[in-house]
Amino acid sequence: MLKKNIYLGLIGFGNIGTGVVKLLKENAEILEQRLGTKIILKKIVDINIEAPRMVAVDPQLLSTDVNEILNDPEIDIVIELVGGYDPALRFLTDALKKGKHVVTANKALLATYGNELFQLAAKQQRNICFEASVGGTIPIIKTIREGLVANRIKSVLGIMNGTSNYILTKMTEEKEDFETVLKEAQKLGFAEADPTFDIEGIDTAHKLALVLTLAYGKRVPLKELYREGISGISQQDVEFAGELGYHIKLLAIARQHDELIEARIHPTMVPFHHLLANVNGNYNAFHIIGDASDSVFLSGQGAGMMPTASAVISDVIDISRDILKGTSWRIPARSFQEDVIQDINLMPIENIITHYYFRFSALDHPGVLSKIAGILAEENISIATVIQKGRKKGQAVPIVMTTHKSQEKNVRQALEKIDRLDIVQGHTVLIRIEDDRLP
Amino acid sequence: MLKKNIYLGLIGFGNIGTGVVKLLKENAEILEQRLGTKIILKKIVDINIEAPRMVAVDPQLLSTDVNEILNDPEIDIVIELVGGYDPALRFLTDALKKGKHVVTANKALLATYGNELFQLAAKQQRNICFEASVGGTIPIIKTIREGLVANRIKSVLGIMNGTSNYILTKMTEEKEDFETVLKEAQKLGFAEADPTFDIEGIDTAHKLALVLTLAYGKRVPLKELYREGISGISQQDVEFAGELGYHIKLLAIARQHDELIEARIHPTMVPFHHLLANVNGNYNAFHIIGDASDSVFLSGQGAGMMPTASAVISDVIDISRDILKGTSWRIPARSFQEDVIQDINLMPIENIITHYYFRFSALDHPGVLSKIAGILAEENISIATVIQKGRKKGQAVPIVMTTHKSQEKNVRQALEKIDRLDIVQGHTVLIRIEDDRLP
Repeated sequence: MLKKNIYLGLIGFGNIGTGVVKLLKENAEILEQRLGTKIILKKIVDINIEAPRMVAVDPQLLSTDVNEILNDPEIDIVIELVGGYDPALRFLTDALKKGKHVVTANKALLATYGNELFQLAAKQQRNICFEASVGGTIPIIKTIREGLVANRIKSVLGIMNGTSNYILTKMTEEKEDFETVLKEAQKLGFAEADPTFDIEGIDTAHKLALVLTLAYGKRVPLKELYREGISGISQQDVEFAGELGYHIKLLAIARQHDELIEARIHPTMVPFHHLLANVNGNYNAFHIIGDASDSVFLSGQGAGMMPTASAVISDVIDISRDILKGTSWRIPARSFQEDVIQDINLMPIENIITHYYFRFSALDHPGVLSKIAGILAEENISIATVIQKGRKKGQAVPIVMTTHKSQEKNVRQALEKIDRLDIVQGHTVLIRIEDDRLP
Repeated sequence: MLKKNIYLGLIGFGNIGTGVVKLLKENAEILEQRLGTKIILKKIVDINIEAPRMVAVDPQLLSTDVNEILNDPEIDIVIELVGGYDPALRFLTDALKKGKHVVTANKALLATYGNELFQLAAKQQRNICFEASVGGTIPIIKTIREGLVANRIKSVLGIMNGTSNYILTKMTEEKEDFETVLKEAQKLGFAEADPTFDIEGIDTAHKLALVLTLAYGKRVPLKELYREGISGISQQDVEFAGELGYHIKLLAIARQHDELIEARIHPTMVPFHHLLANVNGNYNAFHIIGDASDSVFLSGQGAGMMPTASAVISDVIDISRDILKGTSWRIPARSFQEDVIQDINLMPIENIITHYYFRFSALDHPGVLSKIAGILAEENISIATVIQKGRKKGQAVPIVMTTHKSQEKNVRQALEKIDRLDIVQGHTVLIRIEDDRLP
């Protein structure tokens, strides 16, 4: 049986784009054996087609004019790897309007303009695929949307940013300060010159927004996601965490409570025995609990040329299979039918209930501990453990406490009172804990 | 737009069947929101329809006559949860011949008669889905076939049998003997009265055969898979493993070497730091390395009513999406197009190269160690570590050694010579090690 070849247009010939071209070339045979037809990369567009790349390409394929892709009726699938908002949004919009399927790794764009793009794709009945946008090579989109389709998703906990995880891992393993490790990571190319997106949890927020959409079928206003980065994590807290049996990870947390959804991003203490605590370096990971599946855990490379290209091409093959069967929009992009997608109803951060770690900087006076404990008790916060070390009469020493389950509102009120005490110096450090062994 | 409902017939109303009925009922709303149409369970067939179940069912749905499903033209998808070879094979064959799509969790059947079934399904262009047959709730079939479609699979290491993993975990945590733990597991319902299938690696072999087929597009003769179970693992070896920094796991190992594929199932020492070493209790897990993706790790419940039902229904939804779009056989069941499927070319076990753990039972005489070491050297086996403990002059004491990478053929020859020495008692214990930190 003769089958139509599949024609691709690639916009953006940077690091990931190079990986896509390399992989299409190197694994062409196995891709054809699996798909049953050839995939032909017909055009590559980039603003710079002169720069040397790690893969040899017929110069005829290269162009600086995106219209050579958008206006070519033979091209079935457009891969957008430009990044950023503009002109990426324009390219994707135009491609969909011209009846092309699209693949993108652009989480920032989808988290911000996803609603418009998904609606347009639905209207056009064209696939918009984005497996590479969350968790790199890990098939997390496919797992939530297809593998766990029969489940109500009770929770998703994820390490969604490789740079932050690399920094926290190095701080733990090499007992170095945040600033030292960050500089090293920048030198090695694991962190950007301006690392804000990664270390302040902005990149994680983009990914969490997409995960929330897929898990619950909701529109997520990015700005309303509670977010703390890792720049405030000190070596001292990493060490105290270790003493308490925890590693600190930048977690994205999503949890369903009836109509409300809890969603937050912050440094989190995770018990040593938990699989997420053992995800190191620039790896990403997801721990999903479905009402039927129970725990499902996935980890893998969250970034990198070839791992990300692997995810991009898995999308290309999914779409190609639709094309070969004369169909499309087989799975709704947001996991739920478009007509049931609603605005998310986020739980206010003050209402969350979890375990806490506090590090107070207190003068070593008699009665300090009882004062702090008294204020915590007033706010219904019950203490699980206390570590007090290195007494230096009249000087500030760290007092570390962990709590049983407490409400964020009460915690904030208590810390405000405690921070006003004369015997307490500076701001108390607060790190949330995920530990289901504790009451 | 009015869409056709999807009609199911369920054959086998046991534990998993009950889970499927429960899940279809409990999550009907969310399934409809995702799929866009209703799924209607039209008929349930079992030889015993009188027994009480954990889910209430309209008695009209129940029948003992499988033809009420097979001959009902309205039924689109047949779910086979009977288990065993006969009549399950007949049911699946008949269903496919009558143009129905099928879903099964029957790994024994697929590993044995898969070739015929997959060819029939291809001929009929009907989907045969089996996500629940390997790794329970873990979307491992989907991950190999779709998520990692762009990769040459370099290796898959898996914990594919929950019962064995439960027993090995208990032996490690509670320092109990195999027999004691097995009896306990039987009492708790975690092991069958006849546990052979689970503890001797037969169930794991069924699953490895399916994984090999999907990863490499090969027909796998079940009997040629090298297989050792866990019944020979002693508490002493679990403890020595711990001292060396390893946990013992029953691993299924698949690895590609050009044209040859290495495939084996046996107890394996895995370093503490490896994610597989931390998969405990009745959990399953898979560590896949693709040439582009690099490491991808998945874990979750490998069995159980609701986790398995979650996988079964994910298949039902996949098929329903095809039906609603008027298509089928969108993805070839064996991951590769039928016309490229070949017989597997297995590497003989004698040719594998790995690390080894030996426990010799040697009389405490001067020169014992040098004799053993001499024989190993003759066979080109280089020793990595030695543990010798508890000297009792003239009595047998354990001597433990681990090796650098060695060839199985040489190892077998060396052990044959060593076991013939007067100073060595009984058979030397051999456990293979997966540790890529060692040369």
